[in-house]
Amino acid sequence: MTEQKSTNVTWHEHLVSKDERFKLNGHKGAVLWFTGLSACGKSTIANAVDYKLYQAGKHTYVLDGDNIRMGLNKNVDFSPEGRAENIRRIGEVAKLFAHAGNLTLTAFISPYKADRDKVREILGPGEFIEIYVNASLELCEQRDPKGLYKKARANNLPNFTGISAPYEAPEKPELVLDSNSKGIEELSNEVIAYLEKNGYLKA
Amino acid sequence: MTEQKSTNVTWHEHLVSKDERFKLNGHKGAVLWFTGLSACGKSTIANAVDYKLYQAGKHTYVLDGDNIRMGLNKNVDFSPEGRAENIRRIGEVAKLFAHAGNLTLTAFISPYKADRDKVREILGPGEFIEIYVNASLELCEQRDPKGLYKKARANNLPNFTGISAPYEAPEKPELVLDSNSKGIEELSNEVIAYLEKNGYLKA
Repeated sequence: MTEQKSTNVTWHEHLVSKDERFKLNGHKGAVLWFTGLSACGKSTIANAVDYKLYQAGKHTYVLDGDNIRMGLNKNVDFSPEGRAENIRRIGEVAKLFAHAGNLTLTAFISPYKADRDKVREILGPGEFIEIYVNASLELCEQRDPKGLYKKARANNLPNFTGISAPYEAPEKPELVLDSNSKGIEELSNEVIAYLEKNGYLKA
Repeated sequence: MTEQKSTNVTWHEHLVSKDERFKLNGHKGAVLWFTGLSACGKSTIANAVDYKLYQAGKHTYVLDGDNIRMGLNKNVDFSPEGRAENIRRIGEVAKLFAHAGNLTLTAFISPYKADRDKVREILGPGEFIEIYVNASLELCEQRDPKGLYKKARANNLPNFTGISAPYEAPEKPELVLDSNSKGIEELSNEVIAYLEKNGYLKA
């Protein structure tokens, strides 16, 4: 027993710091927060950026509807309160991923400015990169790959962003992607150029 | 507009798979789930393992009270229902971290077998490594680094594991660490030996 205690006392706790994790990875961790209407291209662009960064040996991860709404946030609804809690949890998880050293890409409509600003607040300076994927409602409704807009119009769905619930566009995003006039290849390269220019791709 | 559509159509979605992320890191991702009484040594051992793995160039992350209870789970209480939701969320986040390629260490009392088993279920075969940090209640109460047991006894705190709430020890954990008789150095090496032996430290 005495031996055990003394072992505990002499062990010095070494916590691996954020910067040490960045150093191991050879680049910084940060949150790339894509926001925009349903079908604006958020998820496709985020995954394109993710793939390119992965191919360049960067440590990344995408948080999106597929892995969040089915798991962590399966008990959250689409009311304004539910959306706030949805975004809050995603923000907290994205923060952990960024501090673990990952370039973390999130692809959620995240329609409310206040919810996005709260995520910005819990992150350090430069750790939150807000990326507004700008596509007109007309274009998104025309694309409608999952038929969601059609359904929303036909059944008068409540809380559908752009139709029966507001989308508050970012006022000062770090990056605006013009999804009305440009394709995935060009837009994903714009994101990578931003990371490069702002020093994220080195430790 | 026509050009935009065609660009979207020709872009092939590349999702980076779990195995591709393991390959980049040079080792597998998994969840090392430490469970045991308060003050049994979970967090200290987890951080010692984390530090050693980090020094060996492995990609790791620790989820513990410090980064979870203050953030993601700040709206969860200590009732049995609250504890279940606490562990459920941690399990979902640990899964994401493991699938992102990290050796993910969690250090929570997680007293209920059913809650831990649910985490095991959401992970794939071999991805959940349950590590029982076995220390007697007597020893834990004697250590009591934060004075929690003292407080629990003095104020008749409800829901305090080991005193006023049960701790259900794992029946078939992957690993048992004898924190009654061994120190941090030895126990952390036992965890690393387990990972080595079972192929986790290569992709």
